[in-house]
Amino acid sequence: MTYKNYPMVSRVVFGRGSFNQLDEILAPKRNGRHAPFIYYVDDVFKGNRWLTSRINLSYKDKIIYVPTLEEPKTSQIDQLVEDIILEFSELPSGIIGIGGGIVLDVAKAVSLMLTNKGEAKDYQGWDLIKQPSIYHVGVPTISGTGSEVSRTTILTGPERKLGINSDYTPFHQVVLDPELTKDVPKDQWFYTGMDCFVHCVESLDGTYLNAFSQSYGEKALEMCKEIFLGDDLSKEEAQDKLMMASWHGGMSIAYSQVGVAHAMSYGLGYLLGVKHGIGNCIVFDHLEDYYPEGVKLFKQMKAKHNITLPKGICADLEPHQFDKMIDVALSLEPLWENALGKDWKKEMTREKLLDLYKKM
Amino acid sequence: MTYKNYPMVSRVVFGRGSFNQLDEILAPKRNGRHAPFIYYVDDVFKGNRWLTSRINLSYKDKIIYVPTLEEPKTSQIDQLVEDIILEFSELPSGIIGIGGGIVLDVAKAVSLMLTNKGEAKDYQGWDLIKQPSIYHVGVPTISGTGSEVSRTTILTGPERKLGINSDYTPFHQVVLDPELTKDVPKDQWFYTGMDCFVHCVESLDGTYLNAFSQSYGEKALEMCKEIFLGDDLSKEEAQDKLMMASWHGGMSIAYSQVGVAHAMSYGLGYLLGVKHGIGNCIVFDHLEDYYPEGVKLFKQMKAKHNITLPKGICADLEPHQFDKMIDVALSLEPLWENALGKDWKKEMTREKLLDLYKKM
Repeated sequence: MTYKNYPMVSRVVFGRGSFNQLDEILAPKRNGRHAPFIYYVDDVFKGNRWLTSRINLSYKDKIIYVPTLEEPKTSQIDQLVEDIILEFSELPSGIIGIGGGIVLDVAKAVSLMLTNKGEAKDYQGWDLIKQPSIYHVGVPTISGTGSEVSRTTILTGPERKLGINSDYTPFHQVVLDPELTKDVPKDQWFYTGMDCFVHCVESLDGTYLNAFSQSYGEKALEMCKEIFLGDDLSKEEAQDKLMMASWHGGMSIAYSQVGVAHAMSYGLGYLLGVKHGIGNCIVFDHLEDYYPEGVKLFKQMKAKHNITLPKGICADLEPHQFDKMIDVALSLEPLWENALGKDWKKEMTREKLLDLYKKM
Repeated sequence: MTYKNYPMVSRVVFGRGSFNQLDEILAPKRNGRHAPFIYYVDDVFKGNRWLTSRINLSYKDKIIYVPTLEEPKTSQIDQLVEDIILEFSELPSGIIGIGGGIVLDVAKAVSLMLTNKGEAKDYQGWDLIKQPSIYHVGVPTISGTGSEVSRTTILTGPERKLGINSDYTPFHQVVLDPELTKDVPKDQWFYTGMDCFVHCVESLDGTYLNAFSQSYGEKALEMCKEIFLGDDLSKEEAQDKLMMASWHGGMSIAYSQVGVAHAMSYGLGYLLGVKHGIGNCIVFDHLEDYYPEGVKLFKQMKAKHNITLPKGICADLEPHQFDKMIDVALSLEPLWENALGKDWKKEMTREKLLDLYKKM
């Protein structure tokens, strides 16, 4: 048996207000005046001086606001890479993503595609990237995706929704400043937090699990329970803890995988553009046959925070649309194998998936 | 406030038997036939073919067995560095430490001192190292010290027992193979495991703590309780979990510090050569005034595993010897500040330390 040699984030700074240190962290990484730092910033922060005034632009540095209504597409990454190549005479000194999972994944993907030829879609899968990325930094402003610590960047391509999983994907630097999450709207807070919770349930319940991933997953799950079901935490404590839960939840995937909810949520995302966090929630709500304990806890959390999930999003779909969603979901073989074991194809049929999708 | 930008281990592989992958991991790091890999191996493995047959020596690679009766001295590091410089025409491709905390710390220190001028004693302290170390790999064969993941390497110098704390200290690669711990004698297993337990108690109880370190420390502490007080784990599960507890316990120090037990244990180590694990146990056993809950749990663990600690090790000491131990302990200011707060000097007097040492 061969075990994965997991690449870790090189450096991490944690603390309320640590975002103020970004400038000092980046300074020694500058490769000269023609090699800019490119900041991808969630466009929710456009005009938000509290955040943007702390980004110090020098020379040709540039802020690019990233719309986050839709998840990143491979074609979008190709365009962003082309824009950089056309505008600047040298490769950037670094790419900094400031935002949620979408923006972090954009930063990771662009930093990879600046040094790897061809199109982003060519690299969707596992270990297809050959060249080291350029220096890239992640600054999460919402907690739960685990993108800040993972070795993947999830993209929707022409054929499939699938990550660029590689040893060069993880950030060189992560800045964990829980204060940056203070204005996240409640629904979004819940959906993205549940991404972490669902990660952990799927990882802990999976067949791939080992003691490394288990220890991270258990801690993240425990923290999610404390945050979403407890009553003892101050607002700041809850922000701090959710940021760490996301971190540990992401690490728990190192020797594990997500499972049924993520596979089905990718199907919804591909066909309907349903975003990952809410998509996970919509799917997970119906998975009591696969994750009975987890789904029970999830329903308690949903009730406690008065979250109403959209219903009937698949009501008007045509058969060929269900077929496409099922294709996308079933193509994620490692997720199914982790969830259901080597013989997962016997257990998870197209009919079962169709029945589940029809409920949503 | 400025937060530490913590340097992480670059890569980690976890799994029973993962030691077999060492060769494949090292191959791309070789800088040519004149740049050897130097393996520092705990001399307990001398003649142990089960382990040593899996170290493949090529070109000028060399195994150096490290005696572990005593903890590493700065002069020993200087000698090892000189030996390498005299024997080889080029810097090594890498330094691999295979053993417990002593061997891991030797590997870290040698890899630093091969690229930094002067003597190891000049770098005892915080952030005195200026040049990146050479590539170094840690393979723990006993669990608990946290050295595999920390940014320090503890050395006894002419003046003090103090680590070389730097951003270049952490390993580039760690191989976590719990199977390598299978033959650790019971006493040593307990003492080293308690190093992790005591780390966690001191870190969680300290004034430096934040949510990052807390999450790691809590998980490691919980795992220690399961391992040392529970009855449900198989031998293999307990080995796996203790290796992860050590990892998380080490990470919990990132934004924290150890405390009273470690400071006093360094005093014992400096003067009497008492090793760190057992020294922590001897000290911690008397610290109910500082860590009441932790000491209670510790006594339960000690009883459950029929561990008898040495008594009266300070019985015959002269006043000037007590003075020296107290000097060494009190010199570790960050540890005391973490344990007792900014005004620690009012609380921890030489008299109190003397009373405590006299009980040991």
